[in-house]
Amino acid sequence: MPTITSVEVTDVRFPTSVTADGSDAMNKDGDYSAVYVVLHTDGLDSDGAPLAGHGLTFTIGRGNDVVALAARQQAAQLVGGDVDAAAADMGGLYRDLTSDSQLRWLGPEKGAVHLSLAAVLNAAWDLAARRASKPLWRLLADLTPEELVDVADLRYLSDVLTREEAIALLRAKEPTKTERIAHLEQSGYPVYTTSAGWLGYSDDKLRRLCQEAVDAGYGHVKLKVGANLDDDVRRLAIAREVIGPDRRLMIDANQVWDVPQAIDWVRELARFDPLWIEEPTSPDDILGHAAVRAAVAPVRVATGEHCHNRVMFKQLFQAEAIDYCQLDTGRLASINEIVAVLLLAAKFGVPVCPHAGGVGLCEMVQHVSVLDYVAVAGDLTDRVTEYVDHLHEHFTDPCIVADTGTGAGYVLPTAPGYSTRMHPESVARFRFPDGEYWKTASHVPHG
Amino acid sequence: MPTITSVEVTDVRFPTSVTADGSDAMNKDGDYSAVYVVLHTDGLDSDGAPLAGHGLTFTIGRGNDVVALAARQQAAQLVGGDVDAAAADMGGLYRDLTSDSQLRWLGPEKGAVHLSLAAVLNAAWDLAARRASKPLWRLLADLTPEELVDVADLRYLSDVLTREEAIALLRAKEPTKTERIAHLEQSGYPVYTTSAGWLGYSDDKLRRLCQEAVDAGYGHVKLKVGANLDDDVRRLAIAREVIGPDRRLMIDANQVWDVPQAIDWVRELARFDPLWIEEPTSPDDILGHAAVRAAVAPVRVATGEHCHNRVMFKQLFQAEAIDYCQLDTGRLASINEIVAVLLLAAKFGVPVCPHAGGVGLCEMVQHVSVLDYVAVAGDLTDRVTEYVDHLHEHFTDPCIVADTGTGAGYVLPTAPGYSTRMHPESVARFRFPDGEYWKTASHVPHG
Repeated sequence: MPTITSVEVTDVRFPTSVTADGSDAMNKDGDYSAVYVVLHTDGLDSDGAPLAGHGLTFTIGRGNDVVALAARQQAAQLVGGDVDAAAADMGGLYRDLTSDSQLRWLGPEKGAVHLSLAAVLNAAWDLAARRASKPLWRLLADLTPEELVDVADLRYLSDVLTREEAIALLRAKEPTKTERIAHLEQSGYPVYTTSAGWLGYSDDKLRRLCQEAVDAGYGHVKLKVGANLDDDVRRLAIAREVIGPDRRLMIDANQVWDVPQAIDWVRELARFDPLWIEEPTSPDDILGHAAVRAAVAPVRVATGEHCHNRVMFKQLFQAEAIDYCQLDTGRLASINEIVAVLLLAAKFGVPVCPHAGGVGLCEMVQHVSVLDYVAVAGDLTDRVTEYVDHLHEHFTDPCIVADTGTGAGYVLPTAPGYSTRMHPESVARFRFPDGEYWKTASHVPHG
Repeated sequence: MPTITSVEVTDVRFPTSVTADGSDAMNKDGDYSAVYVVLHTDGLDSDGAPLAGHGLTFTIGRGNDVVALAARQQAAQLVGGDVDAAAADMGGLYRDLTSDSQLRWLGPEKGAVHLSLAAVLNAAWDLAARRASKPLWRLLADLTPEELVDVADLRYLSDVLTREEAIALLRAKEPTKTERIAHLEQSGYPVYTTSAGWLGYSDDKLRRLCQEAVDAGYGHVKLKVGANLDDDVRRLAIAREVIGPDRRLMIDANQVWDVPQAIDWVRELARFDPLWIEEPTSPDDILGHAAVRAAVAPVRVATGEHCHNRVMFKQLFQAEAIDYCQLDTGRLASINEIVAVLLLAAKFGVPVCPHAGGVGLCEMVQHVSVLDYVAVAGDLTDRVTEYVDHLHEHFTDPCIVADTGTGAGYVLPTAPGYSTRMHPESVARFRFPDGEYWKTASHVPHG
């Protein structure tokens, strides 16, 4: 009967702004960062190593300490808890963590206290999966429809999805789960890459990276746009030339436009046949996304990395505002809220293509996409999950992307947990502000 | 040429949960708190006292430190700045404070970093008004339409309100400003009271407070509902009996319901003829509010205290989801964002009735409501601003509510600033966790 004995919350920051990795029209100088939560226990895992849960949320630098402070307060409630009791009632654990009415005022269900909640709950889910000696997707896929719905937060959703509908939806997919798992074991889960298209990269680097993506078997490439229309036209022409007419090209504006400007700009870029425009305007603007979508068809609309909770996704679906749901595993309140969004998306027939730049997001989204295919949506049509090829070296069980003959795909994770355990050396080196890197860095984050 | 020499950010918490002041169906045990920001300068005010700006945002206890940490980082950017230069370009100051792309990730424009921004900007606006030796409403009402629009954040709004429309809207009200100021000097700005109806109060206390509200000249009384239908029926019957059929009764559910439940519950309470149902469901649920509004008419729908930014208000108006806009001066990013919402509300013809429970919110909203009447909406029809009668003793220029013969109203503020300066003794006593009160309190906040 292991018990959670202590909590460790660390502000970890990687100096990605030095190389313009991750640069886009809104976020010019991000230092990819994580609020990293470890739930220590007095138990052992199946290898005889100390049992612990590891979770994180992603930020881009300054303010990571604000989220860490909130995470410390939320995670402290878990200390002393029985691991098996928590794992057996993850819905109850979620409700305990979200029922603090005073902290709720800071959102509700958004901003720093929701990001921190994601980190804490991600650690709890990692712990539950490690305790069960299963990768997290498998732990979830093995649940009955009732059990899976019990972990989901359906509050504020009953006008479009009742508990009974959710169970029925899962039941319909239950008999064919094993076939889909077998398919993923063979082919992996389809991915696309954003690594080629950061705004801070030169044309030469863009051309080279697009070619590398083609060579690696990618069928989709995504470019950042929105800072300068002439630059966008030139860069999209290069990308389309390199990838050819048949591979998919996506564009991402990272919220820089007002609605009328988004419509005008996307129409200018439509000649490069983009599959989707991502984050055309404020992530809060549900009706604005619906207006953009109606105006720029056949270019489709994608959003979600800043969509702060299930109530916003519900409305994006109700308003027919998006063609792709890009939920974020560091922004939604972990599996409990993610399963609710997967159920909503399945009901509305919107494909889920999770956001996964950042730190550790790729590690997490592979579990979510696999769960979605195996147990919820049961479909790969129009599904493609983001992959960005940096910072994986800091994880003990990094995600793996490989081309198994049908195009690049996430290889089905097999290690126990949520794949979010970082190397202790990485945490120590990049801990802010007193890790080895930051103590001696010539790169000092401004502000 | 005074300069901002230092910033002081204090976590101040008042033990309101001891007496159930402020209790409602969602927030059972709030300790009304403020993140209190003081911008010190090397100048003097018109009385020869040290010139400083004082601002705050409101929370209900735990997490106040999280907001304070963010406020310290944001406010630090102002140190060394010239007061007159800042006051002459408050739109520029706003853009400087909101342009930190790394901190932006924690929202964007929502949650802890937006609350903290409100506190910092509120202090900057108090400073600007004190430097001009004017109450803030007067400083703003004296601006030209172009100047007032220059301070407003119109980003993401151009699909419904252009800069030119905003200027035209203000110009139409300009010639008659002085008449409206004269009216407010005589009659005050109409208020209602929530002090009677907190959920934690007994029936006897409810009855007594309703009678006191009637005796004090209030034409409106608001009650909290949503925890238990039988209790609500009994309490509403008492309130309606005391205030009679002609005074207005409002009800507030503080987000506890899903949409279908909100509709059913409000229909049950409709027999008590409530003017509005406030916060029937999640504050993020724009389409949900629209559905509730359509279903419960003629009961009207009000929301806004948790509406996190102007983009959400834009959609509440577009979707015809609300009858009353209850913007919050601690949640929106101060005057810059508030003026944008006042302009939107005026364009859509939705009356603004600001939220004002909490600490210092009444002190601020009187300026906002006066500005709205004098320079933006130019109308008192259906307008009534909240007033709650506790914690004013901690402010050096508390708001004053009086019945001047036409019902209770906020007396037009005349002291320079935003009325948000607290007594140093109050700040010292209730500073958390090391102020005199908390060091010796038998009341220890749980969690």
